[in-house]
Amino acid sequence: MIDRLVSVFLKFPGIGLRQARRFVYHLLLAEPRYIEEFIFLLQNLKKETKQCTRCFRFFEDQSRQSRDESEKPEKNECSLCVKNVNSSILIIVEKDIDLENIQKGNAFHGTYFVLGGLVSSLNKESSARIASLVARLKKDAPTKKLEEVIIALSAHPNGDYTTTYIKNIIAPIAKKHGIKISTLGRGMSTGTELEYSDSETIRQALENRR
Amino acid sequence: MIDRLVSVFLKFPGIGLRQARRFVYHLLLAEPRYIEEFIFLLQNLKKETKQCTRCFRFFEDQSRQSRDESEKPEKNECSLCVKNVNSSILIIVEKDIDLENIQKGNAFHGTYFVLGGLVSSLNKESSARIASLVARLKKDAPTKKLEEVIIALSAHPNGDYTTTYIKNIIAPIAKKHGIKISTLGRGMSTGTELEYSDSETIRQALENRR
Amino acid sequence: MIDRLVSVFLKFPGIGLRQARRFVYHLLLAEPRYIEEFIFLLQNLKKETKQCTRCFRFFEDQSRQSRDESEKPEKNECSLCVKNVNSSILIIVEKDIDLENIQKGNAFHGTYFVLGGLVSSLNKESSARIASLVARLKKDAPTKKLEEVIIALSAHPNGDYTTTYIKNIIAPIAKKHGIKISTLGRGMSTGTELEYSDSETIRQALENRR
Amino acid sequence: MIDRLVSVFLKFPGIGLRQARRFVYHLLLAEPRYIEEFIFLLQNLKKETKQCTRCFRFFEDQSRQSRDESEKPEKNECSLCVKNVNSSILIIVEKDIDLENIQKGNAFHGTYFVLGGLVSSLNKESSARIASLVARLKKDAPTKKLEEVIIALSAHPNGDYTTTYIKNIIAPIAKKHGIKISTLGRGMSTGTELEYSDSETIRQALENRR
Repeated sequence: MIDRLVSVFLKFPGIGLRQARRFVYHLLLAEPRYIEEFIFLLQNLKKETKQCTRCFRFFEDQSRQSRDESEKPEKNECSLCVKNVNSSILIIVEKDIDLENIQKGNAFHGTYFVLGGLVSSLNKESSARIASLVARLKKDAPTKKLEEVIIALSAHPNGDYTTTYIKNIIAPIAKKHGIKISTLGRGMSTGTELEYSDSETIRQALENRR
Repeated sequence: MIDRLVSVFLKFPGIGLRQARRFVYHLLLAEPRYIEEFIFLLQNLKKETKQCTRCFRFFEDQSRQSRDESEKPEKNECSLCVKNVNSSILIIVEKDIDLENIQKGNAFHGTYFVLGGLVSSLNKESSARIASLVARLKKDAPTKKLEEVIIALSAHPNGDYTTTYIKNIIAPIAKKHGIKISTLGRGMSTGTELEYSDSETIRQALENRR
Repeated sequence: MIDRLVSVFLKFPGIGLRQARRFVYHLLLAEPRYIEEFIFLLQNLKKETKQCTRCFRFFEDQSRQSRDESEKPEKNECSLCVKNVNSSILIIVEKDIDLENIQKGNAFHGTYFVLGGLVSSLNKESSARIASLVARLKKDAPTKKLEEVIIALSAHPNGDYTTTYIKNIIAPIAKKHGIKISTLGRGMSTGTELEYSDSETIRQALENRR
Repeated sequence: MIDRLVSVFLKFPGIGLRQARRFVYHLLLAEPRYIEEFIFLLQNLKKETKQCTRCFRFFEDQSRQSRDESEKPEKNECSLCVKNVNSSILIIVEKDIDLENIQKGNAFHGTYFVLGGLVSSLNKESSARIASLVARLKKDAPTKKLEEVIIALSAHPNGDYTTTYIKNIIAPIAKKHGIKISTLGRGMSTGTELEYSDSETIRQALENRR
């Protein structure tokens, strides 16, 4: 029982054997009410959480909590997608947490698409929703509202490879409908010291000077 | 739902807000079978795990899996306690994980007592099972089998304070029955370099030279 | 003698007491030839190194090694300043090492000014050569060659404060002579992951998207 | 000149290219008086520092500062060796800094021998003064004052190998003169937590319990 629970925790992101065991002892020592709450949440997490059919982020389905379910149709789009349905900018991010992090800064008010993974040159199988992205663009582009797609992936080789991959795939649709494709600005990030910067960051900080 | 699950994970040892959120997304993306296994284990963990009435460590109750429960009486003592019931040495450790770590090295073959916490000079309320320890000793001491109690706590101020606290409390019983009270040897631990050692470690390494 | 040498090393950047002592033992165990070379270099470092009168960086005076010193006038400007005398871009950096790091990447081909320190809102005394910077601009600006000044300081509060301070001081000269004032681009730097980025970096990466 | 000085600093213990360059700029920006002091100390360090003929540690020769050198014979033994000439315990350490660290704690009042390096199973050439150690013991042992030799090396494989190597070499002298050979105590060092201890440390902490 203990070993099986350790195995479950070993699949958690960033958790090794020692911490997995600590988690099990944490649960063994926990109050019954805490365990019950935990079980209840695990049982209901997926039931009450939906994946948005437009942006693919997870969101909590508020309609289920309304008294009269017959009146409110079950929503399949998240509040951000509903609110920004007429936005002219679409931003592509890798993960839900990236989306959350952008939302937190309140610096973007367009609409999102959560890719769900990166594309790799080595591993052809990827969890990236490339087909869904293309479908989304094909549906949104002809409405004339969409003016720009920002590919907002992390600044590492795998992110850069995926950015190029996506650019190539969506270029024809973008060209046909006059949609601009952009990527996040590169340069000095908060805290970067010139003395410790790599050549590529310095080159881009110079090129993107304002 | 998501926020409530984040709150549950925030109580896990060493887990902050960012990692708690990552755990929730890990579960949202997980296979139903994985979630079901997780729920099953949480539901049964406490049922099939007992706390040993002698050493207070958690152990899995094998008897529950036997077909004929009427024959096997429900065991309330762990296999280590049953096996080492006649041991002349008792070792006091703080946590189940400390016990596991000692077992792993196969360097101790006596019997254990898991204290469950440390005593602090500031906080009088402690999860340390001092009363149970005293009861255990009062029961074991008169049998003449027990010859030594090793207090095996971590080498930090809180551990040292608890060691002194326990020593004072068990001294009368130990004296009465001729039981030796000892503590873990101090000195150089694996990898310690003399150049970077503190004065206390050097002093004890010199004192405990062999 | 040993303690005095330890004191000298304690003034080295980033060196504490332990490492200072290790340096002294390193010298005590060193070959005489190594110590002699060290002394020779210390004696001649300043003699054969000049501070450029234009950019204030340190450079080695090659003319001293020429046979006939009467013919070659003693150079007071470094090779970078001589080579880029007609450059239309001037970059302001904090330290010699920042200049070296930019040179290493080969991404900038204009002329430099080494500020020698930052300005702080708390400490009014600063080693920043503000007056020399203004003098340099007053001399260069009327030649019509200078088109842009890049303030290239580190992306931390002290660097940002100094950037604003310099901007305000050089604005009148820049305006009069039609010189553009720019700063390094901000955004994602190499290796930055969106998940771990602060709001300010995300905001700037979005604003400076390309 | 700059590059040659960088090369000198690259031989300092623990110093890489970037820090070596920072050291050079530190010197370029330093006051002339600081450089002069530095040069003076380098010129006189070896003249005024002696290596003790008994323990091989470096010490400052105070006699040179006395007015009448004819009266005081030049001392070739350090103050610790002079003071503890009749000590019954000799401790063998690897480096001067190890000796300093032991002295700092004031826990040892015997006499020292600085080995000057470790012996390695791979590299037969070593800076360890094995022959001098043997000579020292042959000279001290017959006086009947020496009762114990403590081999006090770091608790890593190379230190352990050297300990065994020295034990084998000095065993015959020790046996002949009834001298005990000991090593530093092993066990928990300050701050060690049982949960994170390796099996070897736990084994020794149990074995050396008090």
